[in-house]
Amino acid sequence: MMLKGKDIISIKDLSEKEIFEIFEVAKEMVPIAKGRSLDLLKGKVLATLFFEPSTRTRFSFETAMYRLGGNVISFADPKLTSLSKGETLADTIRMVDSYSDVIVMRHSYEGAARLASKFAEHPVINAGDGAGQHPTQTLLDLFTIWSHIGKIKDLNVGLIGDLKYGRTVHSLAIALSNFGANLYLVSPKGLEMPDHILREIREKVKPKITDDMNSIIGDLDVLYVTRIQKERFPDISEYLKIAGSYRVDLALLEKAKKDMIIMHPLPRIDEIAPEVDYTPHAKYFEQAFNGVPVRMAILSLVLGVR
Amino acid sequence: MMLKGKDIISIKDLSEKEIFEIFEVAKEMVPIAKGRSLDLLKGKVLATLFFEPSTRTRFSFETAMYRLGGNVISFADPKLTSLSKGETLADTIRMVDSYSDVIVMRHSYEGAARLASKFAEHPVINAGDGAGQHPTQTLLDLFTIWSHIGKIKDLNVGLIGDLKYGRTVHSLAIALSNFGANLYLVSPKGLEMPDHILREIREKVKPKITDDMNSIIGDLDVLYVTRIQKERFPDISEYLKIAGSYRVDLALLEKAKKDMIIMHPLPRIDEIAPEVDYTPHAKYFEQAFNGVPVRMAILSLVLGVR
Amino acid sequence: MMLKGKDIISIKDLSEKEIFEIFEVAKEMVPIAKGRSLDLLKGKVLATLFFEPSTRTRFSFETAMYRLGGNVISFADPKLTSLSKGETLADTIRMVDSYSDVIVMRHSYEGAARLASKFAEHPVINAGDGAGQHPTQTLLDLFTIWSHIGKIKDLNVGLIGDLKYGRTVHSLAIALSNFGANLYLVSPKGLEMPDHILREIREKVKPKITDDMNSIIGDLDVLYVTRIQKERFPDISEYLKIAGSYRVDLALLEKAKKDMIIMHPLPRIDEIAPEVDYTPHAKYFEQAFNGVPVRMAILSLVLGVR
Repeated sequence: MMLKGKDIISIKDLSEKEIFEIFEVAKEMVPIAKGRSLDLLKGKVLATLFFEPSTRTRFSFETAMYRLGGNVISFADPKLTSLSKGETLADTIRMVDSYSDVIVMRHSYEGAARLASKFAEHPVINAGDGAGQHPTQTLLDLFTIWSHIGKIKDLNVGLIGDLKYGRTVHSLAIALSNFGANLYLVSPKGLEMPDHILREIREKVKPKITDDMNSIIGDLDVLYVTRIQKERFPDISEYLKIAGSYRVDLALLEKAKKDMIIMHPLPRIDEIAPEVDYTPHAKYFEQAFNGVPVRMAILSLVLGVR
Repeated sequence: MMLKGKDIISIKDLSEKEIFEIFEVAKEMVPIAKGRSLDLLKGKVLATLFFEPSTRTRFSFETAMYRLGGNVISFADPKLTSLSKGETLADTIRMVDSYSDVIVMRHSYEGAARLASKFAEHPVINAGDGAGQHPTQTLLDLFTIWSHIGKIKDLNVGLIGDLKYGRTVHSLAIALSNFGANLYLVSPKGLEMPDHILREIREKVKPKITDDMNSIIGDLDVLYVTRIQKERFPDISEYLKIAGSYRVDLALLEKAKKDMIIMHPLPRIDEIAPEVDYTPHAKYFEQAFNGVPVRMAILSLVLGVR
Repeated sequence: MMLKGKDIISIKDLSEKEIFEIFEVAKEMVPIAKGRSLDLLKGKVLATLFFEPSTRTRFSFETAMYRLGGNVISFADPKLTSLSKGETLADTIRMVDSYSDVIVMRHSYEGAARLASKFAEHPVINAGDGAGQHPTQTLLDLFTIWSHIGKIKDLNVGLIGDLKYGRTVHSLAIALSNFGANLYLVSPKGLEMPDHILREIREKVKPKITDDMNSIIGDLDVLYVTRIQKERFPDISEYLKIAGSYRVDLALLEKAKKDMIIMHPLPRIDEIAPEVDYTPHAKYFEQAFNGVPVRMAILSLVLGVR
């Protein structure tokens, strides 16, 4: 009951004990997430406020709520709200708060979810605030590792791709370092992990930094791939060269440990060759599925029914 | 069971006895609206047809339905319907009527909901038809007064702001006069209550008309504030002057009765200073919440389960 | 249990025995579709993916799911998905498949639903793929005939209007010929049934082809009317002449059998005069309603709860 009534704005709001409580509940939720049902949240209403679109996150929260017997009110187009008439975010949140039991919110401004939580009596769950946090993504990433390997401490985890702009990978790197994983940071020049994140990581662990995947692939227990966005490169030929050398394919995997798992927050474009999908390494679709049991755990915990 | 199967198109469709029946049921619904659940409408389907957007009204109807165990089919974008292919409103309504148990409809044309009710076998609830009616808003306004003060008759109710274009305030003024409240109509020059509404009001009560809030604030039991829209003024400096002198703030409230309640249909822009939110006068957020129990009462009554 | 786990991509995927199983279950579902509820699909989640809008089809699938106690995740605007970021349809389907128990999909490309079914572990139901198939429409059309007349074999069925571009009418014509109905194909010059459909029909029955409604109206047990789209005609006066001579009105119906039924996939524009709605011939609104029990039958059968 530790999490009852709690806002989930940043992964840093959660203690290690709370994170493992979420994992234990999520594990129990897996079979229900696959198609059974519970009446835990019968009559409860989740409000999903996506000021920015995110079908994947919205769908998995909605399914989580439905599997638990609850319901969802949802808006996906801020142009259709009173915000466009000049209403403050505070008033919009108060209104939605009075119609629902828990609020999930995505917004383009960093800090928006934190602000919302000041005005809502019910728990607010941050589903991404600009360059800020997306704690349930971090939780489902960690849960995927934990549920496969049984631990996080001392694992060799490679984070590869765009480590500069990827919000997901910043939170994850910090959380992994808190849990004592060994980090391998692999990115093209110009897309390295920002200094302020590196500083936080280095308080806990010594990351290995390289731009050469081949040199470290054999060490890894977990390979976490992120998208390199074309828009970051002024020159398309530069992008194509980089994208090519960071692509995960069967050739690269020959050098990997047999039980290394590959993760990706999705959507995937060309970073992972489709042929990889059919290897036992590929866990990114299961990772996407894990959004449901992890969010079921979070919803039932903050609503105090677990 | 008086209301079973009834369309709710105008507040005038409801007798005083029916209105109080709705209030009594709404009062019972309040604790359920706050997060419990009932199976009264299990398996029932509400269709919400918002030809014009209104997140607040749509959300509170949806929550009302979910708290009662029912479900909702919803469309919010008329461009995505067959109306854009030339289908008549009658045919659209017949289709939706055959898929649902009750229809909630907002449309920009006055009379659209009445027309829809001719073609639907199930009850139609008007959620606003242009300059016409929005009866569930009027009911939740009246319910907020009734549930706080225990009566409506003989209360001194001030309606302030734009009384010319505000649909909400026309229906409310007529309903209040029917219940025997004393009306104080306070508006800037050019935004006075229209003559045809005044005529209806004067059949029941003698309204006091002024453009000076300060002169009447001490008399009021209820202060109902509405938005003054910038677009009504050709000259922005004229608007700013008016908006300033109709703003409700702590200074104004010093002259008010201690238990005067302040209401507002929301969204609020600058008409009420944020500092007022934290006074016991402020009831506008509770008023917004009351949309849920009042709509729960209406849905369960017209569907004949109460 | 024959249909458990089965994809429904084309009407040709279904045997005659399976079609009649759907009809028998749909018949049982009719009273529930009219406002009762079942817990057959409690906790189950349908994903509706409408890459093209279709309010009618979406609403009837959603109502079908709700009447059976299930829930729906839904997206109606492909611009808001990761497909716009370059995600493959395969990956989008895998994601949605991991969040739901059954997928309903409409897409503008022929073959899209078949492709989706390759990547989904759960059943995929095609709700229209461009010029391709829309099998649940065909099933509800056939069910409407079967539930009214008790058989399909040997009936005289007239298909009138645009037989060239109407997807609905192609599938229906082939299905009717498989069931041994006698077909009357009535269309303006230039909008005749395409040769490849004619060839399939002629393997089973000998259709009577004409452009004159009056000459065959007296023979028919079923008159299936489709929309003639203005856009098909370069010259508006040509369209008006054609549309006029294919309009079903009371004068035409004088020559019809007393118990002939009129059907239309809707939306209807001018093809059927409103006066016809009030005759016992008119079954097109009931046909629209039949979308619900037929889809309830299909959902419960593919999910293996019937």
